[in-house]
Amino acid sequence: MSQPLTVAPGKKIRLEEFDPAYANDDYNKKTAADRIRENAKKMAELGYRLYAENRRAVLLVLQGMDTSGKDGTIRTVMRGLNPQSCQVHPFKQPSIEELEHDFLWRIHREVPRRGNVGIFNRSHYEDVLVVRVRSLVPEREWKSRYELINSFEKLLTEGDVTIVKCFLHISKEEQRERLQARLDNPNKRWKFSKGDLAERKLWDQYVEAYEDALTLCNTEHAPWHIVPSDRKWYRNLTDSEILRKTMEEMDPRFPAAEEGLDGIVVE
Amino acid sequence: MSQPLTVAPGKKIRLEEFDPAYANDDYNKKTAADRIRENAKKMAELGYRLYAENRRAVLLVLQGMDTSGKDGTIRTVMRGLNPQSCQVHPFKQPSIEELEHDFLWRIHREVPRRGNVGIFNRSHYEDVLVVRVRSLVPEREWKSRYELINSFEKLLTEGDVTIVKCFLHISKEEQRERLQARLDNPNKRWKFSKGDLAERKLWDQYVEAYEDALTLCNTEHAPWHIVPSDRKWYRNLTDSEILRKTMEEMDPRFPAAEEGLDGIVVE
Repeated sequence: MSQPLTVAPGKKIRLEEFDPAYANDDYNKKTAADRIRENAKKMAELGYRLYAENRRAVLLVLQGMDTSGKDGTIRTVMRGLNPQSCQVHPFKQPSIEELEHDFLWRIHREVPRRGNVGIFNRSHYEDVLVVRVRSLVPEREWKSRYELINSFEKLLTEGDVTIVKCFLHISKEEQRERLQARLDNPNKRWKFSKGDLAERKLWDQYVEAYEDALTLCNTEHAPWHIVPSDRKWYRNLTDSEILRKTMEEMDPRFPAAEEGLDGIVVE
Repeated sequence: MSQPLTVAPGKKIRLEEFDPAYANDDYNKKTAADRIRENAKKMAELGYRLYAENRRAVLLVLQGMDTSGKDGTIRTVMRGLNPQSCQVHPFKQPSIEELEHDFLWRIHREVPRRGNVGIFNRSHYEDVLVVRVRSLVPEREWKSRYELINSFEKLLTEGDVTIVKCFLHISKEEQRERLQARLDNPNKRWKFSKGDLAERKLWDQYVEAYEDALTLCNTEHAPWHIVPSDRKWYRNLTDSEILRKTMEEMDPRFPAAEEGLDGIVVE
């Protein structure tokens, strides 16, 4: 038994066909933690070479319902990376200034520079998710965005940014448990807002919006990964494996040194 | 035997009075690595609370001669922090746009927001170091900057940014060895530039400029730490201890939850 992480571009993605509680038998919670540590070490080394090479970048886009584990993934999986070459950008409600530009303006300026790994905690996809579900712009406007997003992501990949998009897939029941845990744990309560319950009431509309975003923006140049996320250890392991594999395939190299350095003795 | 890390504000700082190879007997290379790991774990926890609290920030300013270990400190000491709430800004030669503003403009925009830890790899101090040594602006201009820097740092601390300034102190002989090692190690050669040798020739002028910057900008609100850095393990340990202590003293707390959450059951 295995469950695919990616879907062929063009094929309709139906989330009910993906089990959010899926985990394969290769690891358990304990061995997954070891593997994540090992991956972090490897990624730190690959990240160092990426930084030295100074030619390409990686952009990890994390999306998912509230409590699906975007922050947890970053905390657990990315902690081993050198913060000097790794930037995280949480995209919240746009500011007044940001709203005075097109929806990709604030995204574009946070794209990682050469040599770096950038992480988007939420992203331009919110502009076809919450914006659609809450009718924050007219339908014809959000409908035009899927194509604009594909073109934008093409621009980035042509500029040597490797885009890794992960949808953290949880069940409605799992979200219920996690929200309740936030309410019940004094150290987690600050994370809870009554607005979370209002969003939860729109679960089905979010599923529909996600299915469209995942289907319409699942391109050859920037495919989506559907990450089973009901079990935190498996979600972290999967994100970690995807990122390690991506960086290994990029195989960054130390750049050539300046000419004429042979035989120099520092005085 | 011990060597102070800080100097009383107002007192002239003479670097020859500080041994760059100093290390106390509390740790050795091996036990220091364990302690740094332990500190990183503690700082990750404190950083999480700082982020949750969302009221104050920490700014670590790293300065030092070429090869003194600014990058190495970040890589070794900061790796355990959550990249979501930790940003590193390496300040290189200013861009044309940056030069069209006052020298603090590009610095100000990178000051960490509430809840975050910011790290400056080089900083506004370059504007009284390389700028002075290389005469990039007239003397009356760089001379006015010490006071402007003190006022700027006052602004930040009044805005609840705790500033930690570390000067990584190495000897001229240690720099010679490190530059030679870069030349001799194929995996490090890309870091070497012939320009490094030109800078090294100006060692004494840099010492003079550093002594002025350290003395004139050693304030109550933002004191300098002089970190013995000839031994990398002791430098990393010292930086790690300073940062841990700073965050412990700040003692960030989880914020109060929204009102009216008692008894809510998520459906």
